[in-house]
Amino acid sequence: MILQAVIDIAEICARKGVEDIVLSPGSRCAPLTLAFARHPQLRVRTVPDERSAAFIGLGIAQQTGKPVVLVCTSGTAAYNYAPAVAEAFYQNIPMLVLTADRPPEWIDQLDGQTIRQSHIYGGHVKRSFDFPVDTEHSDAQWYASRLLNEALNEVMSFPEGPVQVNIPLREPFYPEPGEEFAYSSNVKIIEELPSGFGLPSNVWNNLKKELQQYKRVLVVAGQGRRNELLYSAIQRFCQATGAVFVADTISNQQVAGETINYHDVFLGAKHLHEAERLKPDLFITFHKSLISKNLKLFLRKQKGLQHWHVQQAGMVADTFQSLTRIIRTTPQDFFQNLGQNGEGLQVSPTFSHAWFELENQGKSVLERFLKNSSFSEFKACHQVLRSLPSNSLLHLANSMSVRYANLIGVAEIEGVEVFANRGTSGIDGSTSTAVGSALSTDKLVTLVTGDMAFLYDRNALWHNYLPKNLRIVVLNNHGGGIFRMIEGPRSQPELRPFFETEQRQTAQKTAEDMGLTYHRVSEELDLAALLPSFFDPTQGAQLIEIETDSAENFGIFSSYREQVAKDIKL
Amino acid sequence: MILQAVIDIAEICARKGVEDIVLSPGSRCAPLTLAFARHPQLRVRTVPDERSAAFIGLGIAQQTGKPVVLVCTSGTAAYNYAPAVAEAFYQNIPMLVLTADRPPEWIDQLDGQTIRQSHIYGGHVKRSFDFPVDTEHSDAQWYASRLLNEALNEVMSFPEGPVQVNIPLREPFYPEPGEEFAYSSNVKIIEELPSGFGLPSNVWNNLKKELQQYKRVLVVAGQGRRNELLYSAIQRFCQATGAVFVADTISNQQVAGETINYHDVFLGAKHLHEAERLKPDLFITFHKSLISKNLKLFLRKQKGLQHWHVQQAGMVADTFQSLTRIIRTTPQDFFQNLGQNGEGLQVSPTFSHAWFELENQGKSVLERFLKNSSFSEFKACHQVLRSLPSNSLLHLANSMSVRYANLIGVAEIEGVEVFANRGTSGIDGSTSTAVGSALSTDKLVTLVTGDMAFLYDRNALWHNYLPKNLRIVVLNNHGGGIFRMIEGPRSQPELRPFFETEQRQTAQKTAEDMGLTYHRVSEELDLAALLPSFFDPTQGAQLIEIETDSAENFGIFSSYREQVAKDIKL
Repeated sequence: MILQAVIDIAEICARKGVEDIVLSPGSRCAPLTLAFARHPQLRVRTVPDERSAAFIGLGIAQQTGKPVVLVCTSGTAAYNYAPAVAEAFYQNIPMLVLTADRPPEWIDQLDGQTIRQSHIYGGHVKRSFDFPVDTEHSDAQWYASRLLNEALNEVMSFPEGPVQVNIPLREPFYPEPGEEFAYSSNVKIIEELPSGFGLPSNVWNNLKKELQQYKRVLVVAGQGRRNELLYSAIQRFCQATGAVFVADTISNQQVAGETINYHDVFLGAKHLHEAERLKPDLFITFHKSLISKNLKLFLRKQKGLQHWHVQQAGMVADTFQSLTRIIRTTPQDFFQNLGQNGEGLQVSPTFSHAWFELENQGKSVLERFLKNSSFSEFKACHQVLRSLPSNSLLHLANSMSVRYANLIGVAEIEGVEVFANRGTSGIDGSTSTAVGSALSTDKLVTLVTGDMAFLYDRNALWHNYLPKNLRIVVLNNHGGGIFRMIEGPRSQPELRPFFETEQRQTAQKTAEDMGLTYHRVSEELDLAALLPSFFDPTQGAQLIEIETDSAENFGIFSSYREQVAKDIKL
Repeated sequence: MILQAVIDIAEICARKGVEDIVLSPGSRCAPLTLAFARHPQLRVRTVPDERSAAFIGLGIAQQTGKPVVLVCTSGTAAYNYAPAVAEAFYQNIPMLVLTADRPPEWIDQLDGQTIRQSHIYGGHVKRSFDFPVDTEHSDAQWYASRLLNEALNEVMSFPEGPVQVNIPLREPFYPEPGEEFAYSSNVKIIEELPSGFGLPSNVWNNLKKELQQYKRVLVVAGQGRRNELLYSAIQRFCQATGAVFVADTISNQQVAGETINYHDVFLGAKHLHEAERLKPDLFITFHKSLISKNLKLFLRKQKGLQHWHVQQAGMVADTFQSLTRIIRTTPQDFFQNLGQNGEGLQVSPTFSHAWFELENQGKSVLERFLKNSSFSEFKACHQVLRSLPSNSLLHLANSMSVRYANLIGVAEIEGVEVFANRGTSGIDGSTSTAVGSALSTDKLVTLVTGDMAFLYDRNALWHNYLPKNLRIVVLNNHGGGIFRMIEGPRSQPELRPFFETEQRQTAQKTAEDMGLTYHRVSEELDLAALLPSFFDPTQGAQLIEIETDSAENFGIFSSYREQVAKDIKL
């Protein structure tokens, strides 16, 4: 008989707001598979490669904002989840990882598919639980249901993240013929009400007073979701205080003409890093990581100023080595409260003028360069991004794709939301994450990726759920082209074999195996001609492969850098 | 300037017997990449997917018996090694895992490709070290070289296994133009002399005396390497004591006519598990895990007897729930010492007769059944195994491949050595391990695998080192056919979608992408006609895909089981 406590895991998950489950097949996890697959309120998918399965789960949770449950069998299956678990941890994605296990008496007994799974994700989960092996005692039953509640509450409490529950299971794994298989109607639910950190009113008053002494306020948004209320609050704050708002592409706060979007272009002119007119006296950050290395370098050079980071709870990073104050409230509250009125503020108009002057220069240098340059992956990426349908999603793979896109930006297209696995910046799950995303939205989902990232994660597409709304653009330079862009590896004899790691494959056979319509282009005009039908939402999943030469890409990107250094002036 | 201590890691490895390095490309690991790639005595290969890279390393180390060094960049790369690290831990494969890391001040600072790598493999490494960040102080220099020595000594001390050294690296990652890049001539080496556990002579004498009281001694070999001296010692021991020697296929101790090889066939007749004539009064085990579930079940039923396990050092498993004594010496020493003379031993000839009688029955039932049955993956596996070239290597993927092969055996072909990832029994690295193996031998290496295992680990072949001597046989039943073989899942409505996880791909496009000559067969005669050229060692890497129907495979395998239950008699 299968333990009722195990069957009820699915019921508790359903009652606590879980909607999506990603299973990977296995024997040890069979009771969980049955419990989830049979549950009428849960959407269950099965993906054989656990590495991809977990990233697909991450992509789903990223879209829905609801906790996704992963279920795998015992053994190394759990380890194949680890890259996505780490990404979820740093990207704050709600994920409950249920790892089926042998009971403890069989650990290390050489009996197949058994490793030391308890706490296997180390510091990359918010918490880790061991489900009770035996649930005959009523305390054990209480414990089983309580820990599931605790685990899900922990997943969802700010900042969200992954939690592991390791579930040791004894045979039988399947119900006997005639055995009842039903969820308990009275499962224990511990509800955690929404809450939030906030500041006492005297602290707010002090902040408002203090803000009056700053003349050049720079607001920088890291990776986050689009949020109109937050954006309005920031906009009002900027109007009231003269602050300048810099929005990386993955911040999803870019608005053409209102926010600084071409900072990664114009700060490529390194002499600007010393420019007095750009120097903030206060900068304020919120949300997660930044792509723009130029912006990071610029900010790290601004010594001796105040840096406030706004984040409700959780670990705070000092990405710019300048952090002076942590403010425990939501960014929306913060900007609303401090942007209410601007009286007493001594705005320096030259500061804001300088940034917007450069924004215009950055944009025009970039557009002019790409218009005149010959075909390259940089140019192809520009073509693709400028052709994105409005209100669609864009996924960016590490490593060059996300960098090109951060230069080009998406502010020009309305309602494009951008995602990238910048928690750990791996290439191991970019496609899987995009697949998970596409499975959870009716919008078109475009992934821009490179050949290394695409082929690495090709099992992202190895299952029976190919989403029609998925579009993949593979920038194929037959190797890790990023290494040629960096001076260090470029000048080593080991560049081609050990850094770029030349590989001759295209994405064609993978696309065919996986059921995507495949196109290959190597000319600007062919790409331009193809894009309208590629983005036609009535078509099925498609892949465009853009083959370019790594050395030519480097040549063109070098010219672009020279152009920036030459043309950008303050 | 790159730290001399980092460059010298390669020199210490070379001096301590390392020959093979598997790198995966990355930026953070660049100083290590250069140090290894430039070393004149080291063979360095680069494999992009770290999951495959680590299993390829495992396959190399399995063949060479020398420690293999893995090098990856920071971030989730290290986690992609984890499945192979766990396999190496349970299979006792010598492996030094060098994970490049950011320096500690940048952990959790949202600055890209940074996770908590220190001790990331938990309980699945023998030890884990943190390389010093700064090596200006002479104590730190001593520490750096000492810990490398300690790590390699630990890797190689019995039982061998994986060790992690996490190496935080600051920029610059590349030498400046003109900067010297040379290995120190006087690196510190701490040599550990070969040693071994052994028993004092009075313990040997007691063992000899005690042995005389047993009349029915069963020796069971777990997974291990072929060792002629050990085999001779066991043979002499069996002659002297009347002991019966049962050799699983992965024990690599099968000798036709001398050892019991068809136990997995005849113990399928469950009534034998109670047979008095088969019951040992002492059984002796050595080496690692067993495939045969029938043998495990038989042994677990034999209560109240003595079970001695012989193993020099390390964790001992009680796989059969019957362990009574651990004997800390090598199997070879044990059998040599106790098999010297048989005086005083009261051998029961009926015991040995019963086992060999069943051995003959098992073989003839199996051969007769497979001769007369229609084509199936079981039959195809038999054809392939019976056609293997002598003195070649056989790799078996989990999960049905290794089970079929354990029934069929390889004792009939001279000098075939068998490998399978039975440390953790995952499907995640079976192909990669075979590739690593083929890279390290001139012998032909044949992998028998299923569609799930093959497609899961297809990146095993994504690199520039396709070995000519690699042969792959894919038993494609378009899903996890093993689940239909088991009664539990077979009778659930979830069988096809959630257990077998139907998948429609073949291996063709993967084979084409990866450069293997591809063949597909679905008939006995076609397979028979193909095998001679398939196994022709002058040909390049080839893959045969054998497509069968999962339901038919089950039907045929069920008939086989019925045949065994009906025909095997004692």
